[in-house]
Amino acid sequence: MQSKSEKTTLREHVETRTITVNFTSVPDERNYPIHIGNGVLSQSDLILSHLPKKRVAIVTNTIVAPLYLEKLSAMLEGQGVAPVPIILPDGEKYKNWETLNLIFDALLAQRCERSTPIVALGGGVVGDLTGFAAATYLRGVPFIQIPTTLLAQVDSSVGGKTGINHPLGKNMIGAFYQPRVVLADTATLDTLPERELRAGVAEIIKYGLIRDSIFLEWLEVNMAKLLARDATVLIEAVRRSCMHKAEIVEADERESGVRALLNLGHTFGHAIENAMGYGKWLHGEAVAAGTMLAAELSQRLHMMGKDDVERIRKLYLRAGLPTVAPNLGTKKYLHLMGLDKKVEGGKLRFVLLKRIGEAVVRSDVPAEMLARTLVECTHDA
Amino acid sequence: MQSKSEKTTLREHVETRTITVNFTSVPDERNYPIHIGNGVLSQSDLILSHLPKKRVAIVTNTIVAPLYLEKLSAMLEGQGVAPVPIILPDGEKYKNWETLNLIFDALLAQRCERSTPIVALGGGVVGDLTGFAAATYLRGVPFIQIPTTLLAQVDSSVGGKTGINHPLGKNMIGAFYQPRVVLADTATLDTLPERELRAGVAEIIKYGLIRDSIFLEWLEVNMAKLLARDATVLIEAVRRSCMHKAEIVEADERESGVRALLNLGHTFGHAIENAMGYGKWLHGEAVAAGTMLAAELSQRLHMMGKDDVERIRKLYLRAGLPTVAPNLGTKKYLHLMGLDKKVEGGKLRFVLLKRIGEAVVRSDVPAEMLARTLVECTHDA
Repeated sequence: MQSKSEKTTLREHVETRTITVNFTSVPDERNYPIHIGNGVLSQSDLILSHLPKKRVAIVTNTIVAPLYLEKLSAMLEGQGVAPVPIILPDGEKYKNWETLNLIFDALLAQRCERSTPIVALGGGVVGDLTGFAAATYLRGVPFIQIPTTLLAQVDSSVGGKTGINHPLGKNMIGAFYQPRVVLADTATLDTLPERELRAGVAEIIKYGLIRDSIFLEWLEVNMAKLLARDATVLIEAVRRSCMHKAEIVEADERESGVRALLNLGHTFGHAIENAMGYGKWLHGEAVAAGTMLAAELSQRLHMMGKDDVERIRKLYLRAGLPTVAPNLGTKKYLHLMGLDKKVEGGKLRFVLLKRIGEAVVRSDVPAEMLARTLVECTHDA
Repeated sequence: MQSKSEKTTLREHVETRTITVNFTSVPDERNYPIHIGNGVLSQSDLILSHLPKKRVAIVTNTIVAPLYLEKLSAMLEGQGVAPVPIILPDGEKYKNWETLNLIFDALLAQRCERSTPIVALGGGVVGDLTGFAAATYLRGVPFIQIPTTLLAQVDSSVGGKTGINHPLGKNMIGAFYQPRVVLADTATLDTLPERELRAGVAEIIKYGLIRDSIFLEWLEVNMAKLLARDATVLIEAVRRSCMHKAEIVEADERESGVRALLNLGHTFGHAIENAMGYGKWLHGEAVAAGTMLAAELSQRLHMMGKDDVERIRKLYLRAGLPTVAPNLGTKKYLHLMGLDKKVEGGKLRFVLLKRIGEAVVRSDVPAEMLARTLVECTHDA
């Protein structure tokens, strides 16, 4: 299906898929592997080769710590590596300076050095905060991603975007900083709350919408199994998503071109998250509702038919995701979207759909048509 | 003397020297020029080619703003570029999160975009803060350095080290982020307080000590003219210093090797600054006293003769710089130096002198000899 290089390893009856993110064609320390499988966290060799020193900082949160920190720490200690645990409060509202400083305080108090790797063990918030801390502590230390939510496994743990929110906008402060390795253990999804699983599915659907109609069809066929956490279907969904993310990031690490397509639904979605208060709508939920606005706008611009819009809506509904954005009022939407990083030269740029499987960036959307869409396709909050 | 490429331009009777920092041998947007001269700030073409958009944020402080902000703004406005001024409080004690957030708040309030360049107009503190803001605002925006102190012109504005202090240590949080251009106008040094000029001379002397004995001899001959701000001598001292800094940074951008030599006197110096309270001792003063400790330690390790130690001391004295570090007590020194980024594997690494013009990194200094030096070569504070 895809041409991207990958390999399959059979080990202790666990099938592990490995995708490599290659920024250069020659061996380079910036290239890194993504190991995906049921139980990769127990395969100590996958992480040990990235821990040359006998110490590692592990950043996680109060929810994930009781589930996986002890297990990971015990595995590392068994291999002679001393873990330095740093446990943060849980939630998007903590993705800010204050929490970032908790990480710095702990790293300094424990005298972590330039060569001490930092592991992010958790979802997108832990990954973004920890990655930004790793990018800026002593001007950069080795970084390892262990995503434990579906959203983090298929999206935020791959590609090197790190950062924190600012009262005036989401992800406004951050860095591009690539991990040394990503360990996506689908077994950790067993403990994920239903709502967060569904939010992760929104980002999986996104890859189908923007560049892979065959994957979208596969998701239509396998949605029930995916939501039931069927191991084989989960691994395939994560693998295919990571492959797409890796290809896009390789082509455009710093989002000067094609990487912008990954923001389908995100301009609207960020406005929804911001207006409702970070964390009230999950990121994936806001992206689903935002993508419906983008699809409706695409249809009004005669880029896509009504049938396709309804096909997308149906898939979101089957995934248990919201398909109608809250009515914030056009003025508030415009204001909140104006703060989004996708503003260029004062013009609003939108990721829209030409068809299912092909997204484009458009900066010529008539203001009147945008306003009409925001009225016609939203519900009172 | 040096082989590094540079060019000389005669324009309006002002001689401008240009050094290029080349990270790659092919044209690359990460390579950048350093323009050095008396009056380069008035040569609008030097900055305009780096301002494709009609807007630029200028970060400066309350001391520098009345001196140069209006002049720079007027020049830019005359060329159709709108400046967005951001004025910070002055001083090393403001090199922290709170001040960094003032920059972010202003950039967001003014809706600065990914393509809006940010200029640092000021000394090392403004440059480090602004560079870190540029590295992390929207995950990175174009950055321009206009250093207005001698220290910033010969050291901190070149090489891409940016960052802020943490209560537990100096420059603990930051990023490597290169500017697009550096404009070092030696005319701005006319307004520099005497003490700050002398502190800048400490970093110039450093280049002679670590890799250029001929330059050190030249400084011994020209110290009086340098302190009298003789234009020709100033330009030559800045040019030669930037050439050394550029060569070292090109060879080792992220300080994994030779760049560490630039830290001569800095391990001790940071401890002095930290113990006395940031800003009480100027950075260059602490580096001078710290370098004397490094020289004394080198002599005790039979790496350098007493004559050379005294020759260094004499040059510092002629520059009006302190040559005796405060006696903080060995325990406090060790504690403060242990927090320094130069710790590796728990061992303290020191930059020492084999002779004038050649520095080396040593991690085998006997603890007893270090303790003795800290007692014998310091004065009660």
